[in-house]
Amino acid sequence: MVSSNSLINGDRLWTRLMALAEIGATPAGGVNRQALSDGEIEAWRRVVGWAQAADLTVATDAAGNLFMTLPGRDPTAPPILLGSHLDSQPTGGKFDGAAGVMAAFEAVVTLAEQRLRPACDLVVVAWMNEEGSRFAPGMMGSEAFVGARSLVAIRAVPDADGVCVGDALDRLHAAFPDLPHKPLGFPVAGYLELHIEQGPLLEASEHVIGAVTGIQGKKTFQVVIEGAEGHAGTLAQNERRDALLVFARMATALNAEIGAIDDAIKFTIGRVTVEPNAPSVVPSRVTFSIDLRHPDNAVLDAAGARIAVLCRRCALPCTVTLTPLVDAPSNEFDPRLRDLIVQAARDQGQPAMAILSAAGHDARHLAKVCPAAMIFIPCRDGASHVEHEWAEPAHVTAGAAVLAQVLREIAGVRS
Amino acid sequence: MVSSNSLINGDRLWTRLMALAEIGATPAGGVNRQALSDGEIEAWRRVVGWAQAADLTVATDAAGNLFMTLPGRDPTAPPILLGSHLDSQPTGGKFDGAAGVMAAFEAVVTLAEQRLRPACDLVVVAWMNEEGSRFAPGMMGSEAFVGARSLVAIRAVPDADGVCVGDALDRLHAAFPDLPHKPLGFPVAGYLELHIEQGPLLEASEHVIGAVTGIQGKKTFQVVIEGAEGHAGTLAQNERRDALLVFARMATALNAEIGAIDDAIKFTIGRVTVEPNAPSVVPSRVTFSIDLRHPDNAVLDAAGARIAVLCRRCALPCTVTLTPLVDAPSNEFDPRLRDLIVQAARDQGQPAMAILSAAGHDARHLAKVCPAAMIFIPCRDGASHVEHEWAEPAHVTAGAAVLAQVLREIAGVRS
Repeated sequence: MVSSNSLINGDRLWTRLMALAEIGATPAGGVNRQALSDGEIEAWRRVVGWAQAADLTVATDAAGNLFMTLPGRDPTAPPILLGSHLDSQPTGGKFDGAAGVMAAFEAVVTLAEQRLRPACDLVVVAWMNEEGSRFAPGMMGSEAFVGARSLVAIRAVPDADGVCVGDALDRLHAAFPDLPHKPLGFPVAGYLELHIEQGPLLEASEHVIGAVTGIQGKKTFQVVIEGAEGHAGTLAQNERRDALLVFARMATALNAEIGAIDDAIKFTIGRVTVEPNAPSVVPSRVTFSIDLRHPDNAVLDAAGARIAVLCRRCALPCTVTLTPLVDAPSNEFDPRLRDLIVQAARDQGQPAMAILSAAGHDARHLAKVCPAAMIFIPCRDGASHVEHEWAEPAHVTAGAAVLAQVLREIAGVRS
Repeated sequence: MVSSNSLINGDRLWTRLMALAEIGATPAGGVNRQALSDGEIEAWRRVVGWAQAADLTVATDAAGNLFMTLPGRDPTAPPILLGSHLDSQPTGGKFDGAAGVMAAFEAVVTLAEQRLRPACDLVVVAWMNEEGSRFAPGMMGSEAFVGARSLVAIRAVPDADGVCVGDALDRLHAAFPDLPHKPLGFPVAGYLELHIEQGPLLEASEHVIGAVTGIQGKKTFQVVIEGAEGHAGTLAQNERRDALLVFARMATALNAEIGAIDDAIKFTIGRVTVEPNAPSVVPSRVTFSIDLRHPDNAVLDAAGARIAVLCRRCALPCTVTLTPLVDAPSNEFDPRLRDLIVQAARDQGQPAMAILSAAGHDARHLAKVCPAAMIFIPCRDGASHVEHEWAEPAHVTAGAAVLAQVLREIAGVRS
């Protein structure tokens, strides 16, 4: 195992990661620090403080991304970005996102402390709203950055309380009035992201470093079932247009048919809203989310089409509306960067395992505009998006060291 | 049809009912005035103002019931109560509850204006939280009044935002600091309640007055399904303990088996809460309500037992907890009061129809401590607990006149 070395200070990285986890900490040991919340603003404040203490230049952009820059020798050369996100699921853990931001931060700060200068700017980034739990769908910051989604559309998305991304963004920017704004989507030379695997494969095969080959494809949908309200005590069963009953049948059918396609399919209904949601009222409307993933784009497309058929088939006596939200095919990361990760891992005494990311990440979007790659480290029992999510300190250190070595190789570092 | 007559002023009653409907009015023409909300406090303020203008004595009690008294000749005789409730469903209508309070109010005020004096006090009552949509289960005010449920237990019930009945009650009382408090559960000589039918039978048979024979039995339950959270993109389908999937199967099975017992069964899942309710997280917990009604107590008991079996049978791979909340068998109203209603209806030119109440009402609880009865009037298409709920002005007037006549007969009215 790697402990601290010349590439990063593992103890400092761990201490900062734990300090960050105090912000939005939940009683069960997790983190609730949803996008653009008070908690995320407080997390920004802490990270910005560390960046300013390390003489990094701090900036944001119109999409609420956070940039912390170590200047390179050539200020006109496109920078290398590295990072992840600081927002969490409502009952998330300490590592998802935060580990990637702080590992990137540690790699850059250690380089600066050694008075090394890269050829181009090195920019540690925390993308806005990766998780998509408060404002769906997620990855808004990286999507806006690469131009995959317009900022106007993103700003209009409301949360469950009716607060729009736009207002929440303005509130974030108002909390940091002194930060300069970079233009949205400046040119980038490359992107690196470290993340916990969020699955069991590294742990099961006793690997500490995953060289991520790509990200499995994902489609998400919003489904609305419209029925009719009625009195629970008087409206006869056969005269009801009960949206909840239709939902129950539809969800059962979708799980049975889509969930059973093969072992690699991931089908999830994670969010359900019932209206008016009163015990003695027959529900008139159910709105729910579908999250569908598969590494094979052909299977993913077929499953997506099948979802539409099943929703229509189960709709009676209600009506159903299916709205596609995310449609992200599987992608492959940059082969040269993947080779550098494999080599750096070997140099650190950790053979890397080639691994497909089952979860989505901001790197998916950055890969559209520059060479991009990801480094995975294990998480205990493969558990993520849960409060007991855990990564070993030695694994965080090892992953950060691999990240730092690849960074040094692509950044033309010189003293 | 009855218009205004010597028993009540139908125009004034309608005008006040519409004025009350402005409080908590929804854009679609309904009312959202849930128990102990700002809206209900404002409704109290308006009704208390009318009562004080009519020289009624206004009081409350520890359970947040509202009492407006016309003094009788013998202040030591137990009073006659008449009324209903002022709270509504979140997407309720203008008549459910409010019609009964305002008809009672009109009957008593007309009597007072004619300088008639009853033998005992006449008390117009608005019971706290009949609906049970914000704080479940409902009928808290009447249950506390008759001692069916302890005020301590009622005060501890939280709403979805974690606000307890106790705090909401204290807030109501603080808004009316000058109102005296009656002891909880004082002796009562009789109880009358007018209500819209909330079903289609009167309308279908072209009756304007229903002489309610009793209330169909009702059981309610809270069910909690506990599974395990997980990442939607990484956790394999066959390793999931998805509480939402189990809910969907359970709800489908319950509807198919319980909902199909016979035409008279009413089975409703009206409220569902999913946790953590994020699109990319496999749900760990689903909490839902069951509302079960049937006029035959033996069928009701058998269906209740069957629900427990089905919940257990569908639980795997999660665990399930079923908590009974309400267990109210069918009841019969006082035969003498029912006869008086039939006779008063005939006198008003409206033959009464004997009808079983499919919905629950506070009168169910008052019937445990005194002779009690209910008068129904039609509502359009039988629709209630919906924003387009509607009763004809002439039907409201007719029902109030029948209520007033029965009141005069049992109250020993004299000039």
